[in-house]
Amino acid sequence: MRNRLLAGALVPVLALTMNAQQALQGGSKGSPAVHEDCTVTFSLKAPTAHEVQLQLDYGKAVTMQRDTAGVWTFTTDALVPDLYLYNYVVDGVKTLDPENVYIMRDVATVKNMFFVDGEQSRLYQAQDVPHGNVSAVWYDSPRVGTTRRMMVYTPAGYEQGKQRYPVFYLLHGSGGDETAWLHQGQAAQVLDNLIAAGRAVPMIVVMPNGNVDEQAAPGSDQRGLVTPTFNHKQWMEGSFESSFADIMDYIDKHYRTLKGKKNRAIAGLSMGGYHSLYISANQPRDFGYVGLFSAAIKPMRGVQSPIYDNLEQKLAAQFGQGVNLYWIAIGKDDFLYAFNKQYRQLLDQGGYPYTYVESSGGHEWRNWRSYLTQFVPLLFK
Amino acid sequence: MRNRLLAGALVPVLALTMNAQQALQGGSKGSPAVHEDCTVTFSLKAPTAHEVQLQLDYGKAVTMQRDTAGVWTFTTDALVPDLYLYNYVVDGVKTLDPENVYIMRDVATVKNMFFVDGEQSRLYQAQDVPHGNVSAVWYDSPRVGTTRRMMVYTPAGYEQGKQRYPVFYLLHGSGGDETAWLHQGQAAQVLDNLIAAGRAVPMIVVMPNGNVDEQAAPGSDQRGLVTPTFNHKQWMEGSFESSFADIMDYIDKHYRTLKGKKNRAIAGLSMGGYHSLYISANQPRDFGYVGLFSAAIKPMRGVQSPIYDNLEQKLAAQFGQGVNLYWIAIGKDDFLYAFNKQYRQLLDQGGYPYTYVESSGGHEWRNWRSYLTQFVPLLFK
Repeated sequence: MRNRLLAGALVPVLALTMNAQQALQGGSKGSPAVHEDCTVTFSLKAPTAHEVQLQLDYGKAVTMQRDTAGVWTFTTDALVPDLYLYNYVVDGVKTLDPENVYIMRDVATVKNMFFVDGEQSRLYQAQDVPHGNVSAVWYDSPRVGTTRRMMVYTPAGYEQGKQRYPVFYLLHGSGGDETAWLHQGQAAQVLDNLIAAGRAVPMIVVMPNGNVDEQAAPGSDQRGLVTPTFNHKQWMEGSFESSFADIMDYIDKHYRTLKGKKNRAIAGLSMGGYHSLYISANQPRDFGYVGLFSAAIKPMRGVQSPIYDNLEQKLAAQFGQGVNLYWIAIGKDDFLYAFNKQYRQLLDQGGYPYTYVESSGGHEWRNWRSYLTQFVPLLFK
Repeated sequence: MRNRLLAGALVPVLALTMNAQQALQGGSKGSPAVHEDCTVTFSLKAPTAHEVQLQLDYGKAVTMQRDTAGVWTFTTDALVPDLYLYNYVVDGVKTLDPENVYIMRDVATVKNMFFVDGEQSRLYQAQDVPHGNVSAVWYDSPRVGTTRRMMVYTPAGYEQGKQRYPVFYLLHGSGGDETAWLHQGQAAQVLDNLIAAGRAVPMIVVMPNGNVDEQAAPGSDQRGLVTPTFNHKQWMEGSFESSFADIMDYIDKHYRTLKGKKNRAIAGLSMGGYHSLYISANQPRDFGYVGLFSAAIKPMRGVQSPIYDNLEQKLAAQFGQGVNLYWIAIGKDDFLYAFNKQYRQLLDQGGYPYTYVESSGGHEWRNWRSYLTQFVPLLFK
């Protein structure tokens, strides 16, 4: 019997009116429209605006053209397949695209995102493959004296099996936090796709927060909705490196990890490359794989920490123990290029083997995502 | 010995230039400024704009006032302490606040957020208390034939101990997904704060995706960056309810759960309330605690599913088994008020005990967050 009270014809409008007061916009008008030739057309309806500009993350702002209906459009040249960010400027005010809910934060900047599809950028997008889990994990850090948050990727199948996995510690740059590699770096998608394609071995990826003066990303700890900043009191003065063992202890205790340096990698971008250099040099027995992505090689001026002392002796010990892979990548236009060159000369003087990749471009996520897709297939093999 | 190569004075500008090309905006100008009397002042610099409006999520758009420097401002009346959303409208174009990186998506709408602090809204904000972990978990759903994603909150201490915990299944509304309760509902903060205050028992909270035609929230599965929608092919036609056992099976297998109805709760808002009603009615032995928050009681027109048949008999079986708490809440102005009233009459006719909470307001997150803070303290006691 179907219930009498609830059986009447009803609610053709239910789906339309439900929450209607909270759905003030949305509904794609097809902008940005990515064409097969990799050009992209942007459209924004703004009949009463006097000037509308498009700001892509690569290149200068361009003025859009208004049609008689008040729709402003611009079509780009063909773009290299990648993840792109953009915003509009409407009568002088930076704005996000009201038609695009996909938004990415980089430090204190928010922009809309889209993909230009291609072999490389397909690695950055969720595909129909098995997915790993991603967890926001709070851990005690006795060496800091607080609880802190990190993100942990466990590969597809981790929950079902009893297998142990190697661990890749992946560090963000200055201004970033534990969420940076997942968002701008699309790390979970990259790992899912490389593992599914048989190009990388299943691994645990640990993404900690390298700013010791914050417990978690802005908005996720008791500081409230603070404005994210590049500058931290505790970031490149040794506190992250000297407390890193707390993270490793937690991971080895709570996850099914493989131990030993041949099962551990560490890499990071910019400040995270600097952290990776010194963590691996100060713990010469722990990391078989080290990646420096556009590394901010230099310690901050005025900093005194035993972490940064005696680097040559530490490198001698590190390479003396054997390093499976020491991988350095930087863009030709990176403002840190000269410092990286100096550092390679130091390695050369010691006769320490490393792999060097020089890309186009500068200090930017386009490079760091690419470096990740190049580095991960080299690990634990 | 300090390394010669790396010891020179350097980089006073490092922190300022690093990533500078990607940090085009940001830096709080103190807007919105929440004053002690709970009024809020908004400021937007837009010297060349002709009209700037402020749209708060409650109330009509208001026109802001321009000063001689081109800064547009508006100060609200005192606001009830809560989480608020807003956007600007600059010369007719809906925009987000370029000074505020905190953004919330609701279906296909994105807005900026801020808090007005008070006893109630403090529950929605991260405090200096122990934090539970939140995981994005992919699980096999044999009854659907795909893998799907859910969010799982485990309370502080879960990772360290061996204790088993009761489980609360918390369901989103139409247009929502597995992330809705965490974002708009601030569920992790609510649970952290209620547990830390001793007002709720530690529990696992499981937030699945109630739209069976998507594997995960928009952007997180292979559909790509689709525009989120209210309308799904599989959402209120029985497929979620009939596959719900896959979720429970996974949770009971992979987490340290307490079993039995006295250790299981299910609640949801709107469509999720409808799902909670029918899942608990179809599984009369499984849930001791049921919460219907502004429940969309009515099945969709034209839907035929055994899930929705014979409700009176199912309720007789459910209440015959004993229900610890059957909790119904709705706002006086909710467009689903009459249907909820009908449903309460049905329960009254059967002599089935329930708790009824009638609030002010309508079909809105302000109510759903409040209902969550009222419901959770009643569970598993």
